[in-house]
Parts: sequence; C-alpha cells; structure tokens
Amino acid sequence: MTLLSLPTFEDVVAAAKRIDGFAHRTPVLTSRTVNEELGAQVFFKCENFQRMGAFKFRGAFNALSKFNEDQRRRGVVAFSSGNHAQAVALSARLLDMPATIVMPHDAPAVKVAATKGYGGNVVIYDRYTDDREQIGRDLAGKYGLTLIPPYDHPDVIAGQGTAARELFEEVGRLDAFFVPLGGGGLLSGSALSTRALSPDCMLYGVEPEAGNDGQQSFRSGKIVHIDTPKTIADGAQTQHLGEHTFPIIQRGVNDVLTANDSELVECMRLLASRMKIVVEPTGCLGLAAARRMRAQLEGKRVGVLVSGGNVDIQKFAELLSLN
Amino acid sequence: MTLLSLPTFEDVVAAAKRIDGFAHRTPVLTSRTVNEELGAQVFFKCENFQRMGAFKFRGAFNALSKFNEDQRRRGVVAFSSGNHAQAVALSARLLDMPATIVMPHDAPAVKVAATKGYGGNVVIYDRYTDDREQIGRDLAGKYGLTLIPPYDHPDVIAGQGTAARELFEEVGRLDAFFVPLGGGGLLSGSALSTRALSPDCMLYGVEPEAGNDGQQSFRSGKIVHIDTPKTIADGAQTQHLGEHTFPIIQRGVNDVLTANDSELVECMRLLASRMKIVVEPTGCLGLAAARRMRAQLEGKRVGVLVSGGNVDIQKFAELLSLN
Repeated sequence: MTLLSLPTFEDVVAAAKRIDGFAHRTPVLTSRTVNEELGAQVFFKCENFQRMGAFKFRGAFNALSKFNEDQRRRGVVAFSSGNHAQAVALSARLLDMPATIVMPHDAPAVKVAATKGYGGNVVIYDRYTDDREQIGRDLAGKYGLTLIPPYDHPDVIAGQGTAARELFEEVGRLDAFFVPLGGGGLLSGSALSTRALSPDCMLYGVEPEAGNDGQQSFRSGKIVHIDTPKTIADGAQTQHLGEHTFPIIQRGVNDVLTANDSELVECMRLLASRMKIVVEPTGCLGLAAARRMRAQLEGKRVGVLVSGGNVDIQKFAELLSLN
Repeated sequence: MTLLSLPTFEDVVAAAKRIDGFAHRTPVLTSRTVNEELGAQVFFKCENFQRMGAFKFRGAFNALSKFNEDQRRRGVVAFSSGNHAQAVALSARLLDMPATIVMPHDAPAVKVAATKGYGGNVVIYDRYTDDREQIGRDLAGKYGLTLIPPYDHPDVIAGQGTAARELFEEVGRLDAFFVPLGGGGLLSGSALSTRALSPDCMLYGVEPEAGNDGQQSFRSGKIVHIDTPKTIADGAQTQHLGEHTFPIIQRGVNDVLTANDSELVECMRLLASRMKIVVEPTGCLGLAAARRMRAQLEGKRVGVLVSGGNVDIQKFAELLSLN
C-alpha cells in the first residue's frame, strides 16, 4: 500500500508563484448571446489561449520547476500523444533540461513535429503491441529520468488548479462551475481552488457520454476502469481516474455530468460563430453541460472552463460543416 | 462646394468617453509563433471581440450618441448589407431610438435576422434596379430620419479611431502599424490616434489587391472610383474613399498596401490554428501585409488591427479547408 500525498490549496498558491511569468494569465470572456440563451451570467476561462494552446502547460511547468539539480540534469520523461507531451517538452525547454516524450506510432505528424519543435526527444512505440507506461518506466530506470504522468501527480494537479484560482480572483464567487474531466487533473485542481475561494459553488466535472468512467466512479465511490471511449473529445479519452485525482474529486466535486459528441459540435460552432474563438472538442464539455442544465441556472453566476484549442484545423473545418 | 469638417484626435478622445461602458475594450493578443515568423514583436488589437463582432460598433455608437433630442425621437437610417447595419441597429437599441436599415434583397438571411434581432426596421431594395443611397435619402427626407453613412462621417471616423488609441495606451509606441482599408473610416481614425500617440510609427492601410482604389487614390492624390471588386474581403469591397476619410489618410498614412485572397486565407488559418481566434477575411488584411514586409520588420514593434470576426461559419469552414 502506498501512502498518497494529496495536494492542497496551498500547493495551488505555490504553483501560481512558480508559473508566474511563464504561463499566460488567460482572459475571461463573456458573451451576451450565451447569457441570453442560458438566462445566466456566464464567465469563460479561456485556456485555449494558454501557452501551447491548453491548460496542460500549468501542471507540467509546475512539476518540472520542482526538480532538484540532479533531476534537472538527467531530465524528464513523459508519455502522451496529446497536449501533455507538448506541455512537458515546452516546460523542459524553458527550464533548460532534456525531455523524452514517448508517443504512439500513429500520433498526428503535426503533434510529433510540435513536440520536436520544442526540443523534445521523441521515442515512438507501437500502440497495439507495446506498453507505453513500461517504456516510460524503463527509460526512467535506465537513464535516471523523472517520469511526469499526465494527471496523476500532486504537482500536476496543483498546477492545473491555478486556472480556476485566476477565474475566482477575477470574477469573484460563482454559483456553478463546469470543468472538463478526463483523468481528473484539471477537475481536482479546480476543486481545490473552488472549495477555498467560492466554497458554496456547485462544481461539476463533465466528461464524454461515451466514456463516463468518472461519473461511474464518482457515484459508486471507487475508481471504475473502461475501454478507451470513442468520442471526438480526444483530451478526455482516459480509461480511469487517478489515485490522487479521485479522492480530491470525491471530496470537492458536486456531481459528474456528461455531454455527447453532437452537443460538443454544436458548442464548438457557437463558440466560433458568436465568441470568435477556436475550441477543441474537449474544451466544449463545460458549455455543453451548462446548456443541458439551463433550467437550473436561471439568474445564476456560472463559470465554464474552456480547457484548450488544439484541434487540427482540417478537422475543425469538418466539424463546423456538419449539419 | 461643401466645407468639410474633419475630425481631430480630440474628437477621438471625446468619442472614447462616449462609448465607454458600451463598447468593449478589446484585448491585445500576441503569438510567439507569429513573432518568430516575422522576427518582430507583434501586437494584435482584436476587434473581432468587439460588440457585434467588429470595430463598426465604435463609430456608429459615437455618431448616434451625438444626436439631439429631436433626432433621437425620429431615429436613424443607414444602408449596409454588413457590419455597419448591425452596428447602427444595436447602437440605436442601446440609445433607445428607432433605426431603419436599408438592405439588399440578397443580403444573407442571418444578417437580416441579426439586424431585426437588434430591433432594426429593415427596408429591402433590389441591388440591381434600386439606388440604395437614394432610398436612404428619401426615407431621411420623408420621415426626418438622420442618415449615418458607413464611413464618410466625422463622428464615425472619430469613433473608429478609439481602437488604435486603446492599442497605443496599452502597448506604447510602435514602429509599424497595419490597418485594413475599405472606405477608410477605420484607417483615418487610426491615423488620428497614431499621429498623436506614436508620431514616428509607419502607418499602413491594407486593401484587397483586387480593388486597390485606395492605393491608387493615395498615390495619385485624388479619389479614384472603381467597380465593386471581387474578393473574399467583403468588408473592403468599397468603390472609393470618402471625402472626409481621404484627406486624413493622405496626411497621416505612410502608404497603402495590398493583399490577395490566398494570402488572406493563409492568415485566417494561421490565426485560427495558432492564435485560436476566428477572423473574417477583411480582418486578415493587416497580418497579410505585415508578412509580405517581413524583411523590413526585423526587430521592430508592430501593431496589427484585426477589424472583425463576422464570417459565416460554413464559409469559414470552407476557407479553412482550402489547400
């Protein structure tokens, strides 16, 4: 049995100091159209404007900043086909340390290129025959690299919590707050900030309907594992919550909701046409859930965390064209 | 011969007070990708986040705020198929006065709906057989309405100048500044602010290559008229500069440049994929010209005015998909 060290709001505050001057303090946008549609006052925390296009930079940079001199010299290893890879590679470059990223052989060329562009060493594995976690652990063991997982790590969670903290600092208390949920790094971090800064706020995690392991876990009280779900929300295709994220979510979140792909596409179109912002499918989860709950939000102050904007532009165009 | 009353920077300052609390103070965004590509420090003034999605709200609201009691009671009339129509309709609603908008029979249904949504009375004319200016003047004469043209009016120009003023207030002096050019309302207003706040800045108007009447006018010293140009930059399909805008442009602008449609599409894609913002083709003119001048911008501080984001979302998706 491992004794877990769970982060607290004080760790979020410390993370905010570490990322200051490196991460963007992203804007909070509002839209009269959305306010009128929901009959509520809605505040969008826009992490699509974060460095490398998603909130992931916050957690990665916070975790890497805490490395000691020996860890820095040897470097970091991460496995990810998505935003975490780029977040670790960019953070490592800024902190002047080597980064090794383990990516699947079928990762989009543009993502591999972006990771290499940030100076990361890319190790390719076969998604169907290799075990990426094992490869990561092997590399860590062999070369003394420090493995930073995409969400199940106290420093990653504390870093992700800084986005919600900035939102509350800027707009004050909220009645309800909707946050995308994959492995739970962003949601658990947001829970720490919400309970500290707006204790009575209803906090909702939102995951793809096709993969509601988070909802099942939250409601059953134990971590439920599922197969990789089929959804356009590629940032939330995780199979289970983490050992660190789950207990924080259990304690600090009010419920876990879901949204389906067609709702996500509708939100993507709404955000592009009325708010003039590009949001990836995962980033639309919060708004989609808020629209479903419309009747209960009348007259309320509502936060929506827009987690990222990293969608392939051809894919984005296709999704906007769907009827 | 009419004696023209040309606005000055003092009128821009007065306009800024009038629109304060009604217009958004839009964000200034930056992108490391663009900075690296241009070898310069580029500041984007994002009027796609302005109310109704474009800078036009500034000029319309300023003009309508100056109406006397009788004018307010009788109301405003405007002819436009685009952003000016919505800007006048919204401003009139906020100022609680009637608005009549003369629109072509083939105006996009979504724009007619938006104008009506703001409470405007829409009068339809036949683009091929009717003279919209005459219809506007007739309505003005018959019902005592005040006609507010889309660009050739001192109060409209002063209002548009507030966007550049906010940019200089926020980022300080610039070496070069690129502003889209249609009829010249935005460019002449920007010239007033630039000469007052960053006198040595090179100020460039940018218009579609297919319709370079502004360039011809600027270089020949007299207003050149052309046929409606064929370009995706529908906000800059004007046939000539205005009597008020031209002399201010002659005095305050350093040159007029052009960009072609394929450059605009490239910029639209760049702005969506890297900066996560939706920009209409006309709004891409400034960046397109800056990219062409890249060699001369090395190490400079550069401003780019993003004029608006009102592009039909299907059209936007099509343009993003082009190769």
